[in-house]
Amino acid sequence: MDPTIESLTRSLRAFAAERDWEQFHSPKNLACALSVEAAELLEHFQWLTEEQSRQLPPERLAAVGHEAADVLLYLLQLADRLGIDLAEAAREKIEINARRYPASLVRGSSRKATER
Amino acid sequence: MDPTIESLTRSLRAFAAERDWEQFHSPKNLACALSVEAAELLEHFQWLTEEQSRQLPPERLAAVGHEAADVLLYLLQLADRLGIDLAEAAREKIEINARRYPASLVRGSSRKATER
Amino acid sequence: MDPTIESLTRSLRAFAAERDWEQFHSPKNLACALSVEAAELLEHFQWLTEEQSRQLPPERLAAVGHEAADVLLYLLQLADRLGIDLAEAAREKIEINARRYPASLVRGSSRKATER
Amino acid sequence: MDPTIESLTRSLRAFAAERDWEQFHSPKNLACALSVEAAELLEHFQWLTEEQSRQLPPERLAAVGHEAADVLLYLLQLADRLGIDLAEAAREKIEINARRYPASLVRGSSRKATER
Repeated sequence: MDPTIESLTRSLRAFAAERDWEQFHSPKNLACALSVEAAELLEHFQWLTEEQSRQLPPERLAAVGHEAADVLLYLLQLADRLGIDLAEAAREKIEINARRYPASLVRGSSRKATER
Repeated sequence: MDPTIESLTRSLRAFAAERDWEQFHSPKNLACALSVEAAELLEHFQWLTEEQSRQLPPERLAAVGHEAADVLLYLLQLADRLGIDLAEAAREKIEINARRYPASLVRGSSRKATER
Repeated sequence: MDPTIESLTRSLRAFAAERDWEQFHSPKNLACALSVEAAELLEHFQWLTEEQSRQLPPERLAAVGHEAADVLLYLLQLADRLGIDLAEAAREKIEINARRYPASLVRGSSRKATER
Repeated sequence: MDPTIESLTRSLRAFAAERDWEQFHSPKNLACALSVEAAELLEHFQWLTEEQSRQLPPERLAAVGHEAADVLLYLLQLADRLGIDLAEAAREKIEINARRYPASLVRGSSRKATER
């Protein structure tokens, strides 16, 4: 397993154990929490133009960084609970996407036309 | 930066560049996509009991692994676009949470009472 | 159109116009806001058991009611912007679902097996 | 209660009862499903510009209408299960927002500055 992912996962396990929070951390609940955190991240962008979203002021950027961290932390806990090797799954998914969206076919066109 | 995160991020950059997809990958759009993927992950759990969510059959587990990978891939791209060091942000957030939820105060009680 | 839906929609139009907020209310942005509000509603339930979710204390129930209202208000604004007749679309969808999930076939089984 | 809301709610109750699906429809599960449907709606917009989102082609618009209906149907079922009067809660929320965002103070400025 990747050293960073492993070390963060170990910290999160200890964190939950010290608080006796494993009982709340069913995969279902962690999937809820992950979705909630992803939406908190999105909230920062909902009224911005795309252009504005590329030029966040420092305070907003720091807040977005914390929300992004929250998403990662719940994702790591969910993967840990389910025994999913995230780095490996991510590598696989990049390969799947490469076959699904050949550059020669989709270049420059938004995926909206080709997806689903 | 973490080697795995860096290597995945480099793959994702090349993937988007080959397809001329950077134009669609504003932080706002990536935050939308992240939220959508997190919900696709949640969809697998929505009608399950917590107990069932701990014992996913192999096919369901593989599908969940792919959705989890999608969440990670969009999160990495968002962080890359915004210049956020995800591993560092995650370490910071664990420390913040440790101060915010002292084990002696919150042990065994769902965060619902203490959060917000 | 349904009188309540129409009257709420009219109030929301006036509300946005008085604040010169129509410029922010593109369908895309309203869809973001709707998703964010749905997640805020979910946040109230994320660490509860299903049983606890059926017996919310009064304060929590009032807060959930406000989040549910937020979801409805963004949904109405989105439908208004796109010219969608929500009540009619809902009636149609119930009919579609009735054909898709015949009672004789799906009785008592979670949709997880049949959906998708 | 509003006639349309009441009539849709009655249809949804019968629909669930005929399929013995009430057992799956805890408020927690319905809140998950609502969030998932809101994200499916958002998915249609994620790679569009705001301008494109204002001019959906007819097929896309019809699909968005069905997703919007799904959001409404789960929202109605959640409110029904919790005994929330949605139309009343929506009216209250509009009044609260009117006090919270006085037109004279927020005119023409995105809520991002004033929210939270």
